[in-house]
Amino acid sequence: MPINLPRMQHRLAALTTPALGGTPAGGMSRLALTDTDRAVRDLLGSWLREAGLTPRVDDFGNMYGRRAGSSPALAPVLVGSHLDTVPGGGRFDGILGVVAALEVASALNDGAVRTRRPLDVVNWTNEEGARFTPAMLASGGATGVFTREWVYARADRQGRTFGDELARIGYLGDAGARPGEVAAYLELHIEQGPILEAGGESVGVVEGVVGIRWCTVTVRGQSAHAGPTPMADRRDAMVAAARMLVAARDLARERGDINATVGQLTAEPGVVNVIPPLVTFSLDLRSREDATLVAVTGDILRARFDAIAAEERVEYDLTIDWRVPPTPFDAAIKARADALCDARGYATRRLWAGAGHDAQYLARIAPTAMLFVPTIGGLSHCETEDAPWPDIANATEVLLALATELANG
Amino acid sequence: MPINLPRMQHRLAALTTPALGGTPAGGMSRLALTDTDRAVRDLLGSWLREAGLTPRVDDFGNMYGRRAGSSPALAPVLVGSHLDTVPGGGRFDGILGVVAALEVASALNDGAVRTRRPLDVVNWTNEEGARFTPAMLASGGATGVFTREWVYARADRQGRTFGDELARIGYLGDAGARPGEVAAYLELHIEQGPILEAGGESVGVVEGVVGIRWCTVTVRGQSAHAGPTPMADRRDAMVAAARMLVAARDLARERGDINATVGQLTAEPGVVNVIPPLVTFSLDLRSREDATLVAVTGDILRARFDAIAAEERVEYDLTIDWRVPPTPFDAAIKARADALCDARGYATRRLWAGAGHDAQYLARIAPTAMLFVPTIGGLSHCETEDAPWPDIANATEVLLALATELANG
Repeated sequence: MPINLPRMQHRLAALTTPALGGTPAGGMSRLALTDTDRAVRDLLGSWLREAGLTPRVDDFGNMYGRRAGSSPALAPVLVGSHLDTVPGGGRFDGILGVVAALEVASALNDGAVRTRRPLDVVNWTNEEGARFTPAMLASGGATGVFTREWVYARADRQGRTFGDELARIGYLGDAGARPGEVAAYLELHIEQGPILEAGGESVGVVEGVVGIRWCTVTVRGQSAHAGPTPMADRRDAMVAAARMLVAARDLARERGDINATVGQLTAEPGVVNVIPPLVTFSLDLRSREDATLVAVTGDILRARFDAIAAEERVEYDLTIDWRVPPTPFDAAIKARADALCDARGYATRRLWAGAGHDAQYLARIAPTAMLFVPTIGGLSHCETEDAPWPDIANATEVLLALATELANG
Repeated sequence: MPINLPRMQHRLAALTTPALGGTPAGGMSRLALTDTDRAVRDLLGSWLREAGLTPRVDDFGNMYGRRAGSSPALAPVLVGSHLDTVPGGGRFDGILGVVAALEVASALNDGAVRTRRPLDVVNWTNEEGARFTPAMLASGGATGVFTREWVYARADRQGRTFGDELARIGYLGDAGARPGEVAAYLELHIEQGPILEAGGESVGVVEGVVGIRWCTVTVRGQSAHAGPTPMADRRDAMVAAARMLVAARDLARERGDINATVGQLTAEPGVVNVIPPLVTFSLDLRSREDATLVAVTGDILRARFDAIAAEERVEYDLTIDWRVPPTPFDAAIKARADALCDARGYATRRLWAGAGHDAQYLARIAPTAMLFVPTIGGLSHCETEDAPWPDIANATEVLLALATELANG
């Protein structure tokens, strides 16, 4: 049962035109529940109908297209991803997974294959969290992680709420359209990292999604004038914060079982000639092992920060703002994915997803797995984001085979 | 010839009332050329007239009150400081120097002393640079460092220009009122640092104002997602910038002849889970020796930054945005100040001014010196800024004696 690569390429191109948020530099800016999101949803809806799938929309705006099974009462297999992007993002993150899910349905149609279970092609709302935080808001809502009231009240930077914007673009559906009982969930996605490319692997079988802790470190020193304050008398929050963030990076390098990233740092008052009394920085920690996250945000990191704070004569607080434990995916589906790759001679490896995905919430309600394709240069969330089509073809073949097996299971 | 300390305390209190920018926490917010600046100028003008001084205003809004000398054709001695403050600043920075200058005139009046030369009490406009950059804008204009057209065109954050605001508050005077030939310039100021307090000295004799270089360091790495990007593959501009700013601080500590301060740091895109591709930070370098500044911003700092950039696989630029060479003050006046302190038994020491002062531009046109008084906790530019009145009394006595000698010279 072959997949149709030109059809996938055509669909990916059609979903990323300038009218749908494509940028002149070849990237994408399509925030959730904007007019461009409505336009791409309208296009997806027309394709679902053309493919003979029955569309429905749930109360979080998640779109489903159902391909009927021979036993319509059985729980469906879901295959999907998301069509929203970060601002200045790429053409593959999420979009490729929706195209691949649609290709599964189209290839089954081409082969006139009737599966036992229904198969739903899914587009999850607001996966990126770039407009409404947190990320994966609507898959979280549909799987019971978040309440509807809370999701609807999430506001963007202009104060417009998820609920209002969902209604405004005409994609406020019914709670009855939520997934309900699910036999399995599959998602194909770009790796967004360099591992598969470096190893020459065509298809990655995802072990699971790493656990994440978002921390805020607040460092308090003493404001003083840059001129008359001797170096030895300073209680410089900037220097202390800089040493702490380097220490976090060094710790991550030494251990090898955790990633540490500082993406935000603000200094008060932020004046060239004032020694900052207050510096705040974010700390994103990720690991496959929750015990590692617990230990590092407990004594291990604090021991290093305490020493720096003592030397620099500053105070600091480390607060944990958000925590998600690691989500391992379904062992049986992963093993089948390995076997399907091996049978086709596709170079493959297991790897962990470092970024969050809707699959991690779906894993709460159903056996779940993800396939990764290599990402050129490991770069994502940028306009040059790209992935090799031969590898996409291989991964989509494996996705199709997995979905077919699960839908017949 | 005694000074009148209660009169000084009364005047300082009267210049820092809530109507004139006094804050509930005991600090001051009086930006240059605002309505509160107009109000304090009106008060100062009335005091100048009450003290029998002849007021005049130059084309930069600098206010002068002339006490006549017996030889009116001789160049005057100027004594002064500034009445503008930073937002949330203190009651002593600048204001104390104007009160002390006025006290010199009042004490001479009290003693019915007639000096040979005229004596001008001065209030310089916009010393802080908190509203119109750069600092010391109007003393720079009056001494020919800046052209009038350039000064007038300086705009605040709301786009209002120095020239328009000067006219609006009614303090646009005549170019003929500028200082012209000056016999000497004296300024009393709080130290804004911890040195006198730590040493138990009552009066500081200022060697001069350090040289300053303001640099911008721009670090360019590679944007990547915090999750899927292994620690070893990162080109993290935040980590590299943090290491560089700590290296600059360490260099300053090791050398002992330079101060290094990083007050501003911005990371793009500033998102928790994105490794920043672009980090920019300010670097304020100060030294008594211009050769030190030249060497450090030349090869010395670059050697350390180059090594860090190579290790972190980032690119960087270091640009010098502003440079002022050190300004040593007049050796003869400093020696007299030492002697006057010694004669009175006041504990004194020489020290360098780390911050800019109007005196540094006056030093271009006249023999110039400054006296410092201790600053409690070394803290300035904050609402708790404070200075001990016994030391203020001592320093003002020395200022009076110096001014009298110079005005009779």
